[in-house]
Amino acid sequence: MSKQELLDRLYALDRQNRHWAHISALLQWDQETYLPPAGVEDRSEQVALLEARLHEGQTNPELGRLLGALGSTAKNPLGDETLQPVDRNFLRVLRKSYDRATCLPAELVTAAAKAEALSQAAWVQARKQNNFALFAPHLQTMIDFAKQKARLWGFEEVPYNGLLDLHESGMTVDTIDGVFTPLRRELTALTRKIATRRPAERDFLDRDYPVDQQDQFGRDLMKALGFEVPRGRLDLSAHPFTTTVGSDDIRITTRYFPKNILSGLFSIIHETGHALYEMGFDPKLRGTSLADGASMGIHESQSRLWENVIGRSLPFWEGQFPRLQDRFSEQLKGISAQAFYRGVNDVHPSLIRVDADEVTYSLHIILRYELEKRLFAGELSVQDLPRAWNALMVELLGLEPETDAEGVLQDVHWSMGAFGYFPSYALGNLYGLQMWETLKKDIPDIDDHIRSGRFDVPLGWFRDRVHRLGAQLLPLELIEAVTGKAPGSGAFIEYLTKKYSPLYDL
Amino acid sequence: MSKQELLDRLYALDRQNRHWAHISALLQWDQETYLPPAGVEDRSEQVALLEARLHEGQTNPELGRLLGALGSTAKNPLGDETLQPVDRNFLRVLRKSYDRATCLPAELVTAAAKAEALSQAAWVQARKQNNFALFAPHLQTMIDFAKQKARLWGFEEVPYNGLLDLHESGMTVDTIDGVFTPLRRELTALTRKIATRRPAERDFLDRDYPVDQQDQFGRDLMKALGFEVPRGRLDLSAHPFTTTVGSDDIRITTRYFPKNILSGLFSIIHETGHALYEMGFDPKLRGTSLADGASMGIHESQSRLWENVIGRSLPFWEGQFPRLQDRFSEQLKGISAQAFYRGVNDVHPSLIRVDADEVTYSLHIILRYELEKRLFAGELSVQDLPRAWNALMVELLGLEPETDAEGVLQDVHWSMGAFGYFPSYALGNLYGLQMWETLKKDIPDIDDHIRSGRFDVPLGWFRDRVHRLGAQLLPLELIEAVTGKAPGSGAFIEYLTKKYSPLYDL
Repeated sequence: MSKQELLDRLYALDRQNRHWAHISALLQWDQETYLPPAGVEDRSEQVALLEARLHEGQTNPELGRLLGALGSTAKNPLGDETLQPVDRNFLRVLRKSYDRATCLPAELVTAAAKAEALSQAAWVQARKQNNFALFAPHLQTMIDFAKQKARLWGFEEVPYNGLLDLHESGMTVDTIDGVFTPLRRELTALTRKIATRRPAERDFLDRDYPVDQQDQFGRDLMKALGFEVPRGRLDLSAHPFTTTVGSDDIRITTRYFPKNILSGLFSIIHETGHALYEMGFDPKLRGTSLADGASMGIHESQSRLWENVIGRSLPFWEGQFPRLQDRFSEQLKGISAQAFYRGVNDVHPSLIRVDADEVTYSLHIILRYELEKRLFAGELSVQDLPRAWNALMVELLGLEPETDAEGVLQDVHWSMGAFGYFPSYALGNLYGLQMWETLKKDIPDIDDHIRSGRFDVPLGWFRDRVHRLGAQLLPLELIEAVTGKAPGSGAFIEYLTKKYSPLYDL
Repeated sequence: MSKQELLDRLYALDRQNRHWAHISALLQWDQETYLPPAGVEDRSEQVALLEARLHEGQTNPELGRLLGALGSTAKNPLGDETLQPVDRNFLRVLRKSYDRATCLPAELVTAAAKAEALSQAAWVQARKQNNFALFAPHLQTMIDFAKQKARLWGFEEVPYNGLLDLHESGMTVDTIDGVFTPLRRELTALTRKIATRRPAERDFLDRDYPVDQQDQFGRDLMKALGFEVPRGRLDLSAHPFTTTVGSDDIRITTRYFPKNILSGLFSIIHETGHALYEMGFDPKLRGTSLADGASMGIHESQSRLWENVIGRSLPFWEGQFPRLQDRFSEQLKGISAQAFYRGVNDVHPSLIRVDADEVTYSLHIILRYELEKRLFAGELSVQDLPRAWNALMVELLGLEPETDAEGVLQDVHWSMGAFGYFPSYALGNLYGLQMWETLKKDIPDIDDHIRSGRFDVPLGWFRDRVHRLGAQLLPLELIEAVTGKAPGSGAFIEYLTKKYSPLYDL
């Protein structure tokens, strides 16, 4: 076979695997949105069957042979130097997923999956009963499996690096420490300062906001931000998410609370940020593994940027508030855009990560990162974890959880063995602001565009610099390419300081 | 392996195939309900991939070996006589689907699928342009493929029997002729008589009926009929249908017209009839190929029975009309239950099958059956088909289509190669009334139960006699077991005569 024939075959196999992944995504979307309650049992078997089929596709020995024939190896994943750059990037992505999938023995995968199911069930019980001891042995098992996997993936020395690398290709403890250390210092200082100031007025945010009205406003806003309606949907689910069911089928969800205008609305903006990324891949990458986000952190950079940097900015609400006030004239009578903006940016330390504001959020992540690092380095035992959690919580946020349910048991991630995942959330904040700093140099009057609802201006910039590339670059390469710098916390800190100093009279 | 081990393995393989079929059903349900318009292209590839995977499962040589090892052959599909009856019925169902799937050469299947895609596209154009000539060569190809398949399935002498047998196991031209001949005579006579009478008042059915109000009434009714909400859903689609996505996940759809109260409502009742069947299989059959309808005709017997025999009866509306009138008090002011019942049972010959009433409907079917029979016997050429259609339309219904679009081109079935499918619709009517005749002997006061909304009474009877059995009996065996007689048209004719004589003063 010629190189082109080898490549064509590789793309064809990959396309099938993408289809399997998308089919699985549809089943999971349906499970969160429309599945009749009694349908759960069959659905879990259907999803397991699909996941097995996808795994079969991803570990197809023919993939390995084709990658090898095109010169792609673990050491040189980009393969044959005479190929087009896009094809070489494709080889790199496939080499990594193939190696990750094939170097684990089937027994290990099966045993880990079984343990995970038990662990998740135990976590649900432990959280409900506020009893960490119920979960502790399962957590230990999850850590042991993750360590084993990381070692098999070649991360002998610092297994935790193997887990970081799973979500952010090329990311290591050293890099993150370099970024998180100043971030932690600045954020704790900022949080402490803000805590001494008078909290923002925000009672008008919790009035009666009829859900159908929220929905209409949210859908209009989603479209205004650039969500292409023929290529996607908005539905309701208990936990908002974005999923890709096909190249032109990107679905987001939200949830509305009848006595809270912000939650449903900002979920829509956040998920729209994810969706705009998925909708913006170069059509040439259609149906391939390159039509994907560069990493979880880069994905989160897009969603958080639309949610916080754009969606919680003064120009945004100067433009949008009159429309919101038109729709909710009773609830927002006498409120100014400026007052609404203040309410939207209420900052205060809290115990629960998912409820945290944009200043304190990253501290919740740093806490989890520090504990994961110590757990995997053998410096912290599972038994001591709750105490360590609470101590660090006091250190970072000045609060002590009264129960483990609102402390160490609050997140589902560890029960699923998803270690090394949390840092991506905070990295997303940093990546986003570093990109935004560059955007502002290119488009100095960006605030005017946002004020006048010209969201196609920032979207066009992100499409061009980030979205269209898909997964061609590794996250660190992408940040470097877009911003000319390695990831750092400077832009994020500067942004927060500039934004919150006037808001809280710092 | 012991017999039990062979059986267990067979059930396990079958269960996987059922999962693939259900996954495919979900993708198709989504396509008709929620799929974003731009998602169609990927979706068709996903469905094709799943269908290929299902076909792979159905033709798995291991299935053939297991069936053989359990004594199931083409001649003796029930297999080993020492097995339990339910397992023997299971072997019979699997033997048939395995043989049907494996005895066609792969090239034939591929060629037919390609031709079908072209044929469907040509039919869409032909209908739009009212130009039969555009479709004729494709129809010829579809007939040729169907004949070829029927011969390979072993129906050398009367290939059309092979197509009938596909939808109604064991059904032949001889059997249907015996049933349809008196049916045709009686129905044409009845239709002619009714046509001479004054049509029923029905203008109140076409007033403004807000869709959300229709939906609320429809959902309440669906539950009242016995639809188990935790095990299913009701959604909207362009064409109403029922689909099974899992053992406890049965979904129906309807569509509402804002100026027509009947269409949406009777679609719900019809589809609920299908759903009640699917919800009623013995839990012991769960996840197996026996958890399925006995045939398409038996399925249709259930839907049409709930729609027509129950849903268009006087006792039904004596019970339900007050609730309907409460909800639509303006639209139905001064209308009595009796008048509503008359309007609901408006009978008149028409050109379009899907709009036909319960008296004339079967004549539309007989027309198609007669033409299919002649086409496959070589007594009618595709070229002469439109003329033959129109002539028979005049003979049976006294109407002549002015265009082929409202004549021979009206249905999608032939363009897909679905020959032998239409008779099941009319057989459903006959099966249903033959069962109903038996039910009335068992429950003489059934009208009182229906009047008082005790739909659990007929449902209980059908669950016990029909639903729980699933696909264990062939349709003819089932009718015999339930009614003690072979299928015939007597009960149906008697029902129509009794019902319409007073309505039209015959």
